[in-house]
Amino acid sequence: MIKRYDSDKMKQLVFNIYQAYGFSDDESEKVAHTLIYTDLHGIESHGVQRMVMYDHFIQNGKIRVKSQPEIVKQTDVSAVVDAHFGLGQLNGIYSMEVAIKKAKEHGVGIVTTRHSGHYGIAGYYANMAAEQGLIGMSSTNSRPAMLPTHATKAFVGTNPIAFAMPAKPHTFIFDAATSTVPQGKIEVYRKLEKDLPALWVAKNGDEPVYDHNDTHDLDLLRDPEANVGLAPLGGVSEATGSHKGFGLGIIVEVFTSILSMGNTSTEISPADLQVGPSQSFIAIDPAIFGDKDQIVNRFSEYLQNIRELPAIPGKTIYVHGDKEAIAYADRKKNGIEIDDHTLEEIMTIAQRLGVDYKPFIG
Amino acid sequence: MIKRYDSDKMKQLVFNIYQAYGFSDDESEKVAHTLIYTDLHGIESHGVQRMVMYDHFIQNGKIRVKSQPEIVKQTDVSAVVDAHFGLGQLNGIYSMEVAIKKAKEHGVGIVTTRHSGHYGIAGYYANMAAEQGLIGMSSTNSRPAMLPTHATKAFVGTNPIAFAMPAKPHTFIFDAATSTVPQGKIEVYRKLEKDLPALWVAKNGDEPVYDHNDTHDLDLLRDPEANVGLAPLGGVSEATGSHKGFGLGIIVEVFTSILSMGNTSTEISPADLQVGPSQSFIAIDPAIFGDKDQIVNRFSEYLQNIRELPAIPGKTIYVHGDKEAIAYADRKKNGIEIDDHTLEEIMTIAQRLGVDYKPFIG
Repeated sequence: MIKRYDSDKMKQLVFNIYQAYGFSDDESEKVAHTLIYTDLHGIESHGVQRMVMYDHFIQNGKIRVKSQPEIVKQTDVSAVVDAHFGLGQLNGIYSMEVAIKKAKEHGVGIVTTRHSGHYGIAGYYANMAAEQGLIGMSSTNSRPAMLPTHATKAFVGTNPIAFAMPAKPHTFIFDAATSTVPQGKIEVYRKLEKDLPALWVAKNGDEPVYDHNDTHDLDLLRDPEANVGLAPLGGVSEATGSHKGFGLGIIVEVFTSILSMGNTSTEISPADLQVGPSQSFIAIDPAIFGDKDQIVNRFSEYLQNIRELPAIPGKTIYVHGDKEAIAYADRKKNGIEIDDHTLEEIMTIAQRLGVDYKPFIG
Repeated sequence: MIKRYDSDKMKQLVFNIYQAYGFSDDESEKVAHTLIYTDLHGIESHGVQRMVMYDHFIQNGKIRVKSQPEIVKQTDVSAVVDAHFGLGQLNGIYSMEVAIKKAKEHGVGIVTTRHSGHYGIAGYYANMAAEQGLIGMSSTNSRPAMLPTHATKAFVGTNPIAFAMPAKPHTFIFDAATSTVPQGKIEVYRKLEKDLPALWVAKNGDEPVYDHNDTHDLDLLRDPEANVGLAPLGGVSEATGSHKGFGLGIIVEVFTSILSMGNTSTEISPADLQVGPSQSFIAIDPAIFGDKDQIVNRFSEYLQNIRELPAIPGKTIYVHGDKEAIAYADRKKNGIEIDDHTLEEIMTIAQRLGVDYKPFIG
């Protein structure tokens, strides 16, 4: 069952747990902010629900609590960060802060980060730049999940692209896997016992898997050697544009693992403690092109014109960021949504670490 | 009927025609190079076949022969170019040269160009950077063609994204409309009297149009007020990822029209002589991140691993740029493919301009 919990209280609990792991106050505050931000924007798959995975990685040493991200090469407009397998969210915030500083000083900042960890939603980091009046972009690679067009084996990660740009009444945020859906969406449908509504998963390269009871094929999604994988954005045939999603996934790989000399999708194994995903962070100051207010106003007007187009009866036209803004207003007032199973996981972690969770979940 | 023509001879004919319009030798050489390059790479829709459209625009003054692109604002890493409605290819080459120069000096160059013209394939400009060992990107907006998710009226252009990166045995080139297919693909299928093989066109927001005889709906594709449009990459429903192609189209709009304060998709009308598409050109030097050779070798190996994956029986796994490399080898040896109708159009133009075409089409 899903219940609502006050976001400020839950944030304090996350803070206390991360402090108990040995993270500093500043670090714990940052992690708590990313996770609660994510739940507040209605993206429950990547919020506190992920704490159990991170807990597992902190315990087995895949996430190294005392690691600090380090700039190993830089210019006025670029940096390569080696994250030394620290917590992904902290590496992400650090790397985007570097990109933002460079963009404010020199117009552009491009940072590529290796040996990182799972960093939650890419849109969080893109939005950091937008909050400072900049264009922000971020991507991460991930273990093999997506089928290259005509291949029967997954190779490319779900490799999301996030892009944020200041706009009124709220920031434009695009944050999308380059596969048709991310891995987590399949799990959500399986938990809900619903069949997949479109060609999200294919076996043998182009045979759709829809049945949520097809445990054989769906379980194999996590196995890079299996003949099952996620469809790229654009499906599995060139007629529907499969090669486009697949190609966008490769472009993400360039900005993350290739430029940083980090681990590529096929080199990332969840079990291997010596590898971690690679990520990219870009900030661009619109002021290098023109008057920032004029640019933002023109963009806001462009987006508003889209919202006001004639729509299919009963449907709403959303611009990217609209749904998240609606979710935020709701969650801020009524609490974030946490299912009982996730809550139990968090309580178990807290208990083990000697953190009193009771005051925060009442 | 389609026949083969020697690419060097045809390039000379194009050169002579553009010289006769009043373009300088240098300009005529550049235009001829872009058009023949495109045909050599098997992208006939955007090669010499486009000369009749440009001819029309040169005659009615939409393309201004004597205009020169001008940098109206710049920093070390950026420029805004006003193209003053000169020929798109010349604006594109100029703008990408500016981006390349900045990337060589400062690591990154981002150029956004307004009041340009139809510039052919975006990949040409991305490849200019790759030929100099850099990462290249280019995009253009275009008049309304793509349906925003749930909208019944087109609004966003087909807004392609091109990305090129040096690799062995040849450059990785991604060049794709953010709609499932570009407008030209529909025309090709109609000419071939073949039904559309996938959801490329929708009416009333989400009703597929497949019938190539459906002139009513397909003719309306060019009418921004009609209830017909191209599907975004990802189709017309959120389940298939429609919002992703739609969002990528908006991102292209930011880098082209929004940052340059140029004309947005809805402001571009083919009939209006005072408007033109907006474009973007990005060059990034991989050397700011690490050893260029090492990066290129690692990327080449990554791509080769994809080519060697197990494939659907009878299908080949292509990496972006492979098909173009195959077409290039063929056309370079056996000639570029030009249909009789296009050849006739070129002969008519040559005749009017007093250019002797006979020596070049034998």
